[in-house]
This record gives sequence, structure tokens and C-alpha cells, in this order.
Amino acid sequence: MRLGRFQLEERVFLGRVEENAVYEIKGDILGEYAETDKVHDIGELKFLPPIDPPNVICIGLNYRSHAAESNMKLPQRPEVFFKLTTAVSAHEECIALPKIAPRMVDNEAELCAVIGKTAKDIEPEEALLHCLGFTCSNDISARDCQLKLDNQWARGKSLDGFCPIGPWIETELDVSDLEVEGLLNGVPMQKSSTANMIFTIAQIISYCSKNFTLLPGTLILTGTPEGVGYARKPPVFVKPGDVYEVRIKGIGTLRNRFAG
Amino acid sequence: MRLGRFQLEERVFLGRVEENAVYEIKGDILGEYAETDKVHDIGELKFLPPIDPPNVICIGLNYRSHAAESNMKLPQRPEVFFKLTTAVSAHEECIALPKIAPRMVDNEAELCAVIGKTAKDIEPEEALLHCLGFTCSNDISARDCQLKLDNQWARGKSLDGFCPIGPWIETELDVSDLEVEGLLNGVPMQKSSTANMIFTIAQIISYCSKNFTLLPGTLILTGTPEGVGYARKPPVFVKPGDVYEVRIKGIGTLRNRFAG
Repeated sequence: MRLGRFQLEERVFLGRVEENAVYEIKGDILGEYAETDKVHDIGELKFLPPIDPPNVICIGLNYRSHAAESNMKLPQRPEVFFKLTTAVSAHEECIALPKIAPRMVDNEAELCAVIGKTAKDIEPEEALLHCLGFTCSNDISARDCQLKLDNQWARGKSLDGFCPIGPWIETELDVSDLEVEGLLNGVPMQKSSTANMIFTIAQIISYCSKNFTLLPGTLILTGTPEGVGYARKPPVFVKPGDVYEVRIKGIGTLRNRFAG
Repeated sequence: MRLGRFQLEERVFLGRVEENAVYEIKGDILGEYAETDKVHDIGELKFLPPIDPPNVICIGLNYRSHAAESNMKLPQRPEVFFKLTTAVSAHEECIALPKIAPRMVDNEAELCAVIGKTAKDIEPEEALLHCLGFTCSNDISARDCQLKLDNQWARGKSLDGFCPIGPWIETELDVSDLEVEGLLNGVPMQKSSTANMIFTIAQIISYCSKNFTLLPGTLILTGTPEGVGYARKPPVFVKPGDVYEVRIKGIGTLRNRFAG
């Protein structure tokens, strides 16, 4: 099942997506909800982030090939960092290159887990039972802030709009061998499978839950495959007008255009 | 004015504190609110975090003396990192030493700004007008996670309970030269004045607002003075039963006990 959040004129609502139809939902997708008899053509709706997360947790360097291209050691445990909730943006939302750091903006296609039930101190075997589902995400990164100017990755990965998610949450998905792709203006940049992750989705969720209480709605971005812009020779950074797409088999395509 | 949040049996409410009296408030301290005629003796109430923040932003190494004891270079711009909202805890709340990292837990006394009005791209001159007020905070840090095991500071500073704030928000306060102290079991550990900060509170808020939209309720922890436990010879880490107090002139004392 695909669950999204949409806007039509001033009205905001949740919906179940089936092909080009959106069936309106009443209630809370983290609690009780029911489908109504209102149906919309998806082409008439504006996409919103499918959820407002209480926290956004990210995992760095979770594909061997990306750790290698970044000249970083393979992590011995999931490398955790956070994004601000104000970074979250939607499918088809235009992302402004930040005035403070417009020149080295880069994309990272990632599978994002959405926590459905509070998780604390859980084992990997139980982890997927605490997920509502999965969505596509782009861990957008201002590489100058992240790697040159700051000691911490925090700022360069949390500028406004730097965490697009969507288009919807897929609640039934086997995430053990999913193809994750990133395309810049239609040209393939990143491509791998979740089967190549260093830490599996279940291991990541379990590990996070042993450190933090994972509240319902928490997003966990699970790392990016090789092919990011800054590791290329010459490096490729975002220019105004560029479009980045994150495609994940079984979910769909998250697409964002950048504006200068 | 001092604004806090309290619990009496199952009931949670906001209140204005005046000496030992708490005058119940109806409404939202980030919007419209009014005092009611209900008054409580503060000794009968349980303290809650005065606010549920949408984000927690922290500034590292903002006192020269602390950068020196940490053997870190003086930052050229505020060194930004984040805590998860699940780390927030209250005055008098007992903080469990985390099972995953119990041995190198350390305290950092800090002045915390509470954003009152959405701030985006503001100048230092306007910054304090966007604050609701100030509270005491403790940037608790598992030094093994922060400095030895992980690449990023994120995890070691966001374990559950690792961001006590309180006891209340003081809305009228000149923060240009405020004494900030940290005491471990009553023994002075940290002591300085906000006048010794590298970046002023107004500069920090302005800088953050140029990177991120600061929503109402956002917490900004503004850095810690010298005297933290891990920089001492021999280092001092938290043991079960220890009590850490953060005292800030004009606000009050935030006190937390640790449990094993």
C-alpha cells in the first residue's frame, strides 16, 4: 500500500495511492485511519512530505563503494548523524540553492525507513515490525560546509529543503535486495542494491533503537551508493535548473528541481 | 517572567513561576496565553521540559578556554551540531547512564536560547527579538561515542535524556554577561561568563537563521565553558548517583541525578 500526503488548493489530506488514483484517508497513518469515498486524480494534487518526522536520523558510508570513493574507512558501526526536521521537503518541491553555500551542493540517493511504532532496545529480528514502510530520500549535502568549513557534517546536510522524501510511503516491501538509483538530469549517477549495504536496514534500526528512542514517524536514511558528484573527476555539483531523481524499485521516483 | 511546564498527578499544565508559587497558564506560550486563577506550591509539582522543541541546535567550542582544554582549534564560524528531540529531559529528571555507553558520560553547562518567533535570514541586531527567552541546559556527552568510536558527535550527544533543560524559561534577561556554572555533587567544575563567548548569542542565532529556518520552540545550546570532566587530569566521568547542577545567574539551577 502506498500512503502519501497531498494538497488541493488550501486543503491538506492523506491518501492511498493506486496507479493514478488517490483515495482520501481520514485519521492518522501512525494510528487509526480509514479510507473515505473521495478519490482524486494524482495529476491534480500537490505532493507534501508523506510525514512530519519528530527526528531525522541518517547513516553515513553504508555502501563499501561509497566509503571507498570518499576515501573514508569502512565504519565498524553505523555512522550516525542527524538532519533538522526543517530540512524535510516533498516530491516535486523546488529546492533553492542556499545563499550561504550555493556552489558545492550534491545529491545522495537513499532508501528511507519510516518508523511506525516506538522502538527502544529492539533486536534486528524485530526491527522491520516497527516500520510503517519505506520511501525514497535524497540526503542533499553542501560539500563545502560538510567537508571543508565545518568540523561536523550537521550544517551542510540540514539546509532548508535538503531532505526531500517521497513521493509516498510503501508499506509492503522486501528491502533485502532493492535497486537504488540516482539520476542527474536523466543521466545515471548512482546505482546499487540494498544487498550491498554494510549494515542491513534491520541492523541499522536495531542499532539506532539501542541508542535512541525511535518515535513513530522518525525517518532513518540508510546511506547512499557510490557515484555522488563530489567524488567524480572532475566533481559534479548542482547548478540552478538541475533535476535529481531518486528511483527505488518497488517505491517509485522522487524528483526535485533546484533553483538558483 | 518565568514560564515552565508542570505535572500534578496525571495533569500537565503551563505556569508562570513567582518565588514558590506557580500560576497556571491556559494557551500556548509560543502564541496566545493567559493566566488563570489556579495557583500551586511549586514543591508539590513535577517539572517537565518547559517546551517540546521541533529541533535542538548546539554550538561547540564557543568559549576559548574550552576549545583550548579540548585541544581544538578556535572555530572561524559557529561549530554547529544537533541533538535529537528525544534527548530532551526535565529539571530533576533522573538520567539513566546508557547501557550502550555508560563509562565516559560527561556534563556541559550551557545557556540555552528558546526561539519564540520563526527566524530566517535575520541579522544579529534582530536576533534577540526572535527569542522567547532563555533556560539552563546540560549538553550531556558520552565521550567514548563522541570522540573515540564515531566520526560524528551526533550519537554520543543524543542518547535518551542527554539534553536536560529548565527549570523554566526566563523571558526577561540580559544575556551579555551572565555567569554560567556547572557543579558535580556540589563541587564547582565549570564557571565562566557569556561575555567570554567567541560568538555572542545574537551572532549565533543570526548565523543559524542564515542556514536553517528556526521554528518557534527551537532550542539553541550556546556552548560550554572550560572545566568539563574529560579534559581533567585524571578525567572525571559520571558515576551512578552523581548530581550535576547547571546554575545561571538570573535563571536558576537545573539539577539532574544520574542512575546506573
